Amino acid sequence: MKSYHVAIVGATGMVGQEFIKLLQQRNFPMASISLYSSDRSAGKRLYVGHREIEVKETAPESFQNVDIVLFSAGAEISKMFSPIAARSGALVIDNSAAFRMEPKVPLVVPEINPEDIKAHEGIVANPNCSTIQMVVAVYPLHKVNPIKRIVVSTYQSVSGTGAAAMEELTTQTKLVLDGQNVVPHVYPHQIGFNILPEIDVFLDSGYTKEEGKMVEETRKIMHAPDIAISATCVRVPVFIGHSEAINIEFTDPMSPEDARQILSKAPGVKVLDDPSVSLYPMPWLAAGSDDVYVGRIRSDASHPRGLVMWVVSDNLRKGAALNAIQIAEEAARREWFKSSK
Amino acid sequence: MKSYHVAIVGATGMVGQEFIKLLQQRNFPMASISLYSSDRSAGKRLYVGHREIEVKETAPESFQNVDIVLFSAGAEISKMFSPIAARSGALVIDNSAAFRMEPKVPLVVPEINPEDIKAHEGIVANPNCSTIQMVVAVYPLHKVNPIKRIVVSTYQSVSGTGAAAMEELTTQTKLVLDGQNVVPHVYPHQIGFNILPEIDVFLDSGYTKEEGKMVEETRKIMHAPDIAISATCVRVPVFIGHSEAINIEFTDPMSPEDARQILSKAPGVKVLDDPSVSLYPMPWLAAGSDDVYVGRIRSDASHPRGLVMWVVSDNLRKGAALNAIQIAEEAARREWFKSSK
Repeated sequence: MKSYHVAIVGATGMVGQEFIKLLQQRNFPMASISLYSSDRSAGKRLYVGHREIEVKETAPESFQNVDIVLFSAGAEISKMFSPIAARSGALVIDNSAAFRMEPKVPLVVPEINPEDIKAHEGIVANPNCSTIQMVVAVYPLHKVNPIKRIVVSTYQSVSGTGAAAMEELTTQTKLVLDGQNVVPHVYPHQIGFNILPEIDVFLDSGYTKEEGKMVEETRKIMHAPDIAISATCVRVPVFIGHSEAINIEFTDPMSPEDARQILSKAPGVKVLDDPSVSLYPMPWLAAGSDDVYVGRIRSDASHPRGLVMWVVSDNLRKGAALNAIQIAEEAARREWFKSSK
Repeated sequence: MKSYHVAIVGATGMVGQEFIKLLQQRNFPMASISLYSSDRSAGKRLYVGHREIEVKETAPESFQNVDIVLFSAGAEISKMFSPIAARSGALVIDNSAAFRMEPKVPLVVPEINPEDIKAHEGIVANPNCSTIQMVVAVYPLHKVNPIKRIVVSTYQSVSGTGAAAMEELTTQTKLVLDGQNVVPHVYPHQIGFNILPEIDVFLDSGYTKEEGKMVEETRKIMHAPDIAISATCVRVPVFIGHSEAINIEFTDPMSPEDARQILSKAPGVKVLDDPSVSLYPMPWLAAGSDDVYVGRIRSDASHPRGLVMWVVSDNLRKGAALNAIQIAEEAARREWFKSSK
């Protein structure tokens, strides 16, 4: 079996840590692994299996003789180094927003559009966390009954922002419980015991960029440019796991029973839906798990062709690191590397 | 000026405490105040202004010579004692769900349907917290451009459940931060750093009773039996203040500018909407305030006649105690007591 030289850029971040964990858990065929970071974190030493590896500063020459580079160090770093890595022959899987909407860059969720990987020119983009869990849950239904409109409200955890935000939630929570004042640093306002309807910057439309991503990325991944989507993206005081309340309008009526049956066979989906015993997805339950959990499936009382559901997933895993590694696995299995094309 | 003999049933609860605070803050014309509770809390002593008052156990004879009784002790207590209080000549304002959907009982939000109070037969019902803040925000728009459909997702604080839930959030939060296990008591699952898509019991439709209330009560208060509504009601780890993401479909298009202008003049509403400085409603900001805050007003990108907004209010005040006292004030001002009809 072929094995690969893997590099991680952003190895010390929240998603970088998940990359390292998942590559081992999934026994990805690695010939070697190199860890890169911004100069701030360079010099740190991380364990991969029993081996201690020094994290190096990312540089143009970092990607020679590397087969796969997993990027999760922000859009600026991706823009700077991904093209260099791709030119040196590596397959870049980029978790940032830098290239997602570029027409020549495949944007892939392996359960939905794995074939899109094939057309890559060195870079495959990993979608946004809130998009991934939504499309994994709605695409199996869309395939049998095309979706016309989606209204989604999210409940997103702070780990989506990064390690500093997790620290901020911890610190602020303690301060509030001690009756002390909170000074926000990572977010524009207090996140401890509070709710912020702002994720990423605001656009002229009044939507945020995060909300816009859920529209544009969903259309691109599902090859469904006409789906109407409105999102409200909201940060909640939860560490790991994003939740989403989703109202779907189909072409034809869709019963909850049919939806449950379709989703129970869908890849990457786990249906948890028994109100009689308060069984439904929740972030603490989804954290650390690979699945996209779906529950609270019911007919939309406000629309004859509507369905409502509640979708929860670990934003660091399927929402980020896992999906990227699944892209790498798919590319490896089908030998869709540039050098092998 | 006429003054009134007031009784509070459920005086030691979260909403009962707000009743006592608001009656004083608003200088409600009280000739006397009596405090009642379940036998569990009877004997406690509470301060009203400078007077220490003993909380007595609620009994059938508690309501003689009382003009106004404010009930917030759960539906069972309301069902047992409200009719007795009404028969003895008092105006009952009931914060429970016991009578809200009874055709002969007015369900009132004073900014919307104060005239409905007049037809009371001794009991006026106070709507559910999540309903009140939604109708205060959408009714002014509905009056100029009738609403056809609402899709709402809520972010509801634990104080809506009561004092025990606030303690549970505190306790569980500390345990999680200490790395210890959590055993839920008040809710079916952990609420500390977690999200629960379950409020009140489940109905056969797959919706919860709380979600059903948002449909039925909204239609009754707004005298709009045909509005289509779908709600997803969700508990979040916040102490005070409910938030709601609301997608509205109107009869005709409605611009965000028009909506902002209408709402800026609407009673009980405060528009906080400037994304350029991250100005929008949040629970910590709304807690302790009387207003219903509206922000993030934007055209719905998924519907030509749609508008999206974000609505936050203090669930104990406008969502419960304040609305009830506003009903009492309205009844007093217009002399709509039974005895005065």
